[in-house]
Amino acid sequence: MPKQRVQSERGEERFKAIGPAEFFFRNIELTGFDNYTRAIFQTVKEMLDNSLDATETHGILPRITIVIERLNEAKASKEEEEKKEIKGSKDGIYRITVDDNGIGVPQDKIPYAFGRMLYSSKYVERQTRGTYGLGVKAAVLYAQKTTGEPATVISSPIKDKMTYRFKVSTNISTNEPDVKERGSWTKSGDWHGTRVSVIIEGNWRRARSKVVEYVRRTAIVAPYADITLITPDGTLIRYPRRTKEMPKPPKEVKPHPLGIDIETMKRIAQLTTAKTLLQMLTTEFQAVGAKTAKAILSMAGLEPDLEPKKLTEEQIKALVNAMKEYGTTKRYKAPSKEALSPIGEKLIKIGLKSMLNPEFVTAVSRRPSSYSGHPFVVEVGIAYGGEIPPSDAPVLLRYANKTPLLYNERNDVSWKVVSELNWKNYEVSFPAPLVVLVHVASTKVPFKDVSKDTIADVPEIEAEIRLALQEAARRLKRFIIKKRKEEELAEKVITFLKYVPEIARSLKVLSVDPETRKPTVSEEEIEEKLKKLIAKKLGVPEDKLPEVVIGIE
Amino acid sequence: MPKQRVQSERGEERFKAIGPAEFFFRNIELTGFDNYTRAIFQTVKEMLDNSLDATETHGILPRITIVIERLNEAKASKEEEEKKEIKGSKDGIYRITVDDNGIGVPQDKIPYAFGRMLYSSKYVERQTRGTYGLGVKAAVLYAQKTTGEPATVISSPIKDKMTYRFKVSTNISTNEPDVKERGSWTKSGDWHGTRVSVIIEGNWRRARSKVVEYVRRTAIVAPYADITLITPDGTLIRYPRRTKEMPKPPKEVKPHPLGIDIETMKRIAQLTTAKTLLQMLTTEFQAVGAKTAKAILSMAGLEPDLEPKKLTEEQIKALVNAMKEYGTTKRYKAPSKEALSPIGEKLIKIGLKSMLNPEFVTAVSRRPSSYSGHPFVVEVGIAYGGEIPPSDAPVLLRYANKTPLLYNERNDVSWKVVSELNWKNYEVSFPAPLVVLVHVASTKVPFKDVSKDTIADVPEIEAEIRLALQEAARRLKRFIIKKRKEEELAEKVITFLKYVPEIARSLKVLSVDPETRKPTVSEEEIEEKLKKLIAKKLGVPEDKLPEVVIGIE
Repeated sequence: MPKQRVQSERGEERFKAIGPAEFFFRNIELTGFDNYTRAIFQTVKEMLDNSLDATETHGILPRITIVIERLNEAKASKEEEEKKEIKGSKDGIYRITVDDNGIGVPQDKIPYAFGRMLYSSKYVERQTRGTYGLGVKAAVLYAQKTTGEPATVISSPIKDKMTYRFKVSTNISTNEPDVKERGSWTKSGDWHGTRVSVIIEGNWRRARSKVVEYVRRTAIVAPYADITLITPDGTLIRYPRRTKEMPKPPKEVKPHPLGIDIETMKRIAQLTTAKTLLQMLTTEFQAVGAKTAKAILSMAGLEPDLEPKKLTEEQIKALVNAMKEYGTTKRYKAPSKEALSPIGEKLIKIGLKSMLNPEFVTAVSRRPSSYSGHPFVVEVGIAYGGEIPPSDAPVLLRYANKTPLLYNERNDVSWKVVSELNWKNYEVSFPAPLVVLVHVASTKVPFKDVSKDTIADVPEIEAEIRLALQEAARRLKRFIIKKRKEEELAEKVITFLKYVPEIARSLKVLSVDPETRKPTVSEEEIEEKLKKLIAKKLGVPEDKLPEVVIGIE
Repeated sequence: MPKQRVQSERGEERFKAIGPAEFFFRNIELTGFDNYTRAIFQTVKEMLDNSLDATETHGILPRITIVIERLNEAKASKEEEEKKEIKGSKDGIYRITVDDNGIGVPQDKIPYAFGRMLYSSKYVERQTRGTYGLGVKAAVLYAQKTTGEPATVISSPIKDKMTYRFKVSTNISTNEPDVKERGSWTKSGDWHGTRVSVIIEGNWRRARSKVVEYVRRTAIVAPYADITLITPDGTLIRYPRRTKEMPKPPKEVKPHPLGIDIETMKRIAQLTTAKTLLQMLTTEFQAVGAKTAKAILSMAGLEPDLEPKKLTEEQIKALVNAMKEYGTTKRYKAPSKEALSPIGEKLIKIGLKSMLNPEFVTAVSRRPSSYSGHPFVVEVGIAYGGEIPPSDAPVLLRYANKTPLLYNERNDVSWKVVSELNWKNYEVSFPAPLVVLVHVASTKVPFKDVSKDTIADVPEIEAEIRLALQEAARRLKRFIIKKRKEEELAEKVITFLKYVPEIARSLKVLSVDPETRKPTVSEEEIEEKLKKLIAKKLGVPEDKLPEVVIGIE
């Protein structure tokens, strides 16, 4: 800093290289921490997402506890008091702790996983919640920036006899983890998991609703998780586990030819164990068999037995272009769905039922599809009636790779599809008690914005959402119609039954034997017969006939 | 890649560190290159901004040429043909070249300035167009990703006898510049400047309007620049220099106590040449004199003669808190405006006049103000009438640190202020030919979003905008009222003059001498006298009286 402070002479600029930690420290808003309100939301989100990835992705039923404590009222500067920024100024210092039963982090990795930017386990071709691999480390940076407090990490990996405890922050200039404390002890019982705490300035008053809603929506699509949230106000919000079933975890896959670029190709050529180009194409890519590979190579004008490591810049380019070229003439096999982990119809239904207590619930999980080389799956759920309050439009719950999307709903492709659907055709007339859930899962969700709040209108994805929604809506329609029929029938029956006693009385009179002056049949008998008759005519089982009590006129 | 492809066993994650180049290569959208249309816009913007920083910031009158050439029609894959993404698919491969007469880049810096992420001359406390220092390097990365072509840089620094030429791209894994070619030759004449070309995939059809508008708006506030744009359609758009005056360049300044955080303090303490804490506070910060420094230190409970380099973590924290604390009780001197470089009223007026040919133009440049430790200046310009077409609302031109803001207008604080103003009070009734320019200059412009399209509603800034706008609007009001008066007057004069000939005729008749039967005065004399009279009554100089020709009834 001080050195920089010398003003540069005319005609000279002082250039300077900075590390990733310093870059993100200076531009923390790039990671979503762009104000005191969002900071709390973002911290909870990143830590909760990590905990879910550390559990369900490895077949562990998640048990997660989130604790947010206010450590003190923050004193605002005169300037800050005077202004009330649209995004809120800070209203306190908070300790945010998330505790999970995940696979834990190996001792030697802990300092890096929390104290080093651009260090992550998520830089692979696989569906995960996080993608940038910045999340929790950004929270640590934000803590350094606002309170200067290091993160506290307690972790115990599976198959490890010990529990480890670190206090770690990031060395801004070197991007090396700065370990303030470390300790370890043999674990009592064989628990495994991770417990992370950061201390940040924030505005809970404004963040509250978003945080609560985020946890709630997460719980909706993760009914197999047991999630507890304890707020600074002392409220405890708990979502107990509602099933032991979990989606099958995603697998890493090879890149698809349509997703490839020159740089990636270069590195594949360097790192492959294949001896020949032909071999490389068939082993390092999905959807490329010997036949396809040969076609591509002849398009590129390259010999099949070239040695990958020896490819020139030009040859690499030719190869990539040929791969794209091939896509324009013939079709590749669709990208593998192995890398995806949809929620599944059953879990969506369980989630919606247990959280909303609707009268009707259904879910549609489409078959995997793809856009420019990236596989994706669309899932739609519909909940209707019951405890759902009526609203003038469908209530939309959006998800990308199982994480809830809360901001800018109206810019999202799902909003487009849901609001364009003509609900009248499906017997829904608003205000109606209708909730629609849309989940897009992909190895690369096409977000519209860096803040990852909305999904772009990629035609393939839009089409899939529409198909799924229509199917679900058709099921809703059938339910609504059936229900209406039953209600109409019930009314009919009742109206008929109302007259039974009267008719019975008159018939009895008619049945009077002139000799004995006594009715030959009893009212009861006649009523029985009439009821049988009605039941038969309307096709209702006799025992299903409602009891109708008529007051005496 | 291939190594990663082995699926991790249950309970294990493979962690991986990546460099900044790879990070931004994977997440290029973080730098604004999030689709084919925006890519062209972003490249032109970054390169134009750099060229202006390389010239005006060093007192050089900018002469900049932008050339965009289509190298070939891009062939879209079947998938891409079928879909037309909302953000546009590519329609060609383009070479974008920007040529300036700036200070040039030293030979040894060229490879890094263009081939290495997070290497820049802009990481200092000073108003510049760029802030992240990613711009042109991101364009280079984007070129690698889409066409694999390196950037071509030709540069000749001031005071250097040679001209240098590099073809450079970035090594994604190491973030080291990858120099493909280099050459140099003695320069003919003493030109200096830089010429950069990148070759990228893009969509010019959709980008065109934004690019043209960006250059136009840049020219409006830089009337001292000579800017030429040549488009792939072969159109040449030129904005010649309209003045030789330039804003005074910004200076680097010391940090303000209210803008400081713990990390920054740590580094100042390490790098300072000051021997004592007291000395450090007075030399390394602005707005801190001996008295203030002592007050802060006693608040922090620190001895004035402590050695900065020996401060403990705790002492640093105490110091920073005390600095903030001091701000809550007493006021600091406002942050220095040295670091700012406003456009100035004169240049704003020249810019608006020359580009819009209005009937009226005015500009208000406020005195510098500050928000939480960051200095800022607000400038407002108004152009009215003339060749400006009437519209139903004011046409708003937004600028941040002299760069035009084109997206999401309605989320911007200036839009808020401009649309909230009650224009009726200023005699403006829509549709009206009204253009409003708002410029916010700061060492840290509080952008609402990472894409840096909109400025947040920071109360201090909002207030300054409102004051500047009201002042400018009052001037407009005076103009409108004056103009109206003149028009009314003119009408009056004309109506009077209409009757002059008639009256003259009758008077002539009255003046007939009964003896001679001849009029004693001529119509001409009478008309003259009448006109004099009218002129006197209405206070219009005689020679200003309009010629009124009356047809014979």
